[in-house]
Amino acid sequence: MHEDQRRRASALLHAHQLDAALFASPASVTWLTGFAPPIQTGPHPFAGAPPLVWWDGERFTLIVVDAWAAAAAPFARAPDGGVLTYLGYTVDAPIDGARHLRALLQSLWQKSANGGRNRRVGVESWAAPSAVGEVLAAHYKGDWVMIDEWLAPLRMVKTEEELAKLRVNFQLTDVAHAAARRATVAGAREIDVWLAAKATVEAAAGQRVPMGNDCVVGYRQENIGGWPLDHALRPGDSLIVDLSTILHGYWSDSCATYFAGAANARQQAIHTVVSQALALGASLLRPGAVTGDIDRRVRQFIANAGYPVYPHHTGHGVGVSGHEAPRIVPYNQEVLAAGMVILLEPGIYFPGETGVRLEDAFLITDDGAIQLTAHDKSLP
Amino acid sequence: MHEDQRRRASALLHAHQLDAALFASPASVTWLTGFAPPIQTGPHPFAGAPPLVWWDGERFTLIVVDAWAAAAAPFARAPDGGVLTYLGYTVDAPIDGARHLRALLQSLWQKSANGGRNRRVGVESWAAPSAVGEVLAAHYKGDWVMIDEWLAPLRMVKTEEELAKLRVNFQLTDVAHAAARRATVAGAREIDVWLAAKATVEAAAGQRVPMGNDCVVGYRQENIGGWPLDHALRPGDSLIVDLSTILHGYWSDSCATYFAGAANARQQAIHTVVSQALALGASLLRPGAVTGDIDRRVRQFIANAGYPVYPHHTGHGVGVSGHEAPRIVPYNQEVLAAGMVILLEPGIYFPGETGVRLEDAFLITDDGAIQLTAHDKSLP
Repeated sequence: MHEDQRRRASALLHAHQLDAALFASPASVTWLTGFAPPIQTGPHPFAGAPPLVWWDGERFTLIVVDAWAAAAAPFARAPDGGVLTYLGYTVDAPIDGARHLRALLQSLWQKSANGGRNRRVGVESWAAPSAVGEVLAAHYKGDWVMIDEWLAPLRMVKTEEELAKLRVNFQLTDVAHAAARRATVAGAREIDVWLAAKATVEAAAGQRVPMGNDCVVGYRQENIGGWPLDHALRPGDSLIVDLSTILHGYWSDSCATYFAGAANARQQAIHTVVSQALALGASLLRPGAVTGDIDRRVRQFIANAGYPVYPHHTGHGVGVSGHEAPRIVPYNQEVLAAGMVILLEPGIYFPGETGVRLEDAFLITDDGAIQLTAHDKSLP
Repeated sequence: MHEDQRRRASALLHAHQLDAALFASPASVTWLTGFAPPIQTGPHPFAGAPPLVWWDGERFTLIVVDAWAAAAAPFARAPDGGVLTYLGYTVDAPIDGARHLRALLQSLWQKSANGGRNRRVGVESWAAPSAVGEVLAAHYKGDWVMIDEWLAPLRMVKTEEELAKLRVNFQLTDVAHAAARRATVAGAREIDVWLAAKATVEAAAGQRVPMGNDCVVGYRQENIGGWPLDHALRPGDSLIVDLSTILHGYWSDSCATYFAGAANARQQAIHTVVSQALALGASLLRPGAVTGDIDRRVRQFIANAGYPVYPHHTGHGVGVSGHEAPRIVPYNQEVLAAGMVILLEPGIYFPGETGVRLEDAFLITDDGAIQLTAHDKSLP
């Protein structure tokens, strides 16, 4: 499980002469271990800190509150992995996950610090709690290296195992979109369309599935994105439905624009241009393509058609986060490679009136790209 | 908005001779400011850190990524409050919320450190990122005080403003339970019952509402709690439905046990005993009652009836977290006071066979308690 990710991470850490490293961001933890804790209601109430991964120069140890022991168990069987848990909930004493985590870390680092020799230790300092950093500093007297975002470039090319998880999510967004399209009728509210999609996803998955991103009617002033509210659809209103699902710790992404009834001539014209812009972008996807060039070509197409150019990215990668490298944005000179999964999502917006955005996902192959999304984005 | 909370917090911090303090836990941030960020899909993707609150000895400043500026705006108008935001998303440069947050904090603390004089600064060290702690340490050379959980005792007694938010949530759990009760039929799966409840809540609220906690059929081996899965209900199966909603940053809580068809004689007997245990607990709620005594009395009632005593708490407080002080557990000697909101939730469980738990919420009043939950927990 995720062996290849750990090999890539170890090689990077060794190349930087690190002796040990602490990962604390949700993306890093999931990418390194495959462990993906539930996130729907916020941080675990009885945990001392988010899940941590400690690399001692050879092995990766996942450190979680005991309530997650069963979910983390598969990683205990990894040849280069292990799991440590600490007490969270109890009725016998005040709940104090922080104290139990501290004791676990002290014991772990006392052993692996080898008598306090100077060593170079990497830390994800924007994700690891300050108290965890203090425990670490008490045992490791050497250099500290901030390693936030170090793994981001390594995450760009997906493994087969990751592609399998991503495909499950893209199938879920397909069924979600089919439900959202059916539910987009005059009188329905944004939240009603959203719920139709959400219920279909969770019924299909047989479990809870967190879902992003946007469900906004065209007449909202901020009609590019936003959470679904109780704004009701009037006949002819456009509705941007931009959906990610998060299952097995991996995100999908996808967008379509639906209409309550028929689209008017202006909406149809916009929809056609956006659809052509998306097709243009897709035609440019292949190994060696420069991300900033793709961005420029798609923006230029919208401008040439006489429409305002969208203020957001043209696209982005996806994986253990919803928006990751490589970004398809003006400044970026990163180059596409086989195994990357890329979203493209051009749009045209008239604030307070209407807007259209269309988005598909693509897997970069040896000689081009194949589409991973299959939702119906056609005009009604 | 939440002025009383800030008065209580200031008094505590001054009493401990603190000159400044940094709060970083979601519960503290919401309790101090009323600001409650969306949590459904995990941490904000473009934020450098979770929302922070900085107390400079007088004023409270909420520090959030710019995407949350509108949601945080009400706090900018508080006479003792303010909001600072930093750049998150941009297409003009790599996204680097951490760098922009660091610059903001450096500027803020350079000003308020008054030339580096020694001062006592409190930090929620298990919630504040290590990098934030390092920026703070670079400006404040004085004593560091860990203030994690300091606010927990202050949060026990609710203000009228908090009670209003809690009541909205308890109304949502009432409608959720009505839907769950209807949906509990043979052939339905746990996830189907859950979705019925969830869809009813979000349709009623007109927005997304995170929802906990448990939806487990009696025949599961771990039938005390767990997320809904695709286990199907057979005729006569019991289903524990334990629901929290989180709206405006405040949690409700509530539990009922439903049956796919009729309950058998054994289930009826268990249900009756649990119902009586809950009523006994409720009768003990008044200012001055000792939490550990209530716990002991309710456990003893279950034991005297000849059933195994539940391995969890008898009850707990609720507010900006789902489970907070005062806990109704064996060791606790905390005393109830008017204005506390208390859950009671006795249960009887036979793993792999059946289980019953019933839970209501109560507001402690000057001479007793009034029930805040109104869901139907009766036998079918």
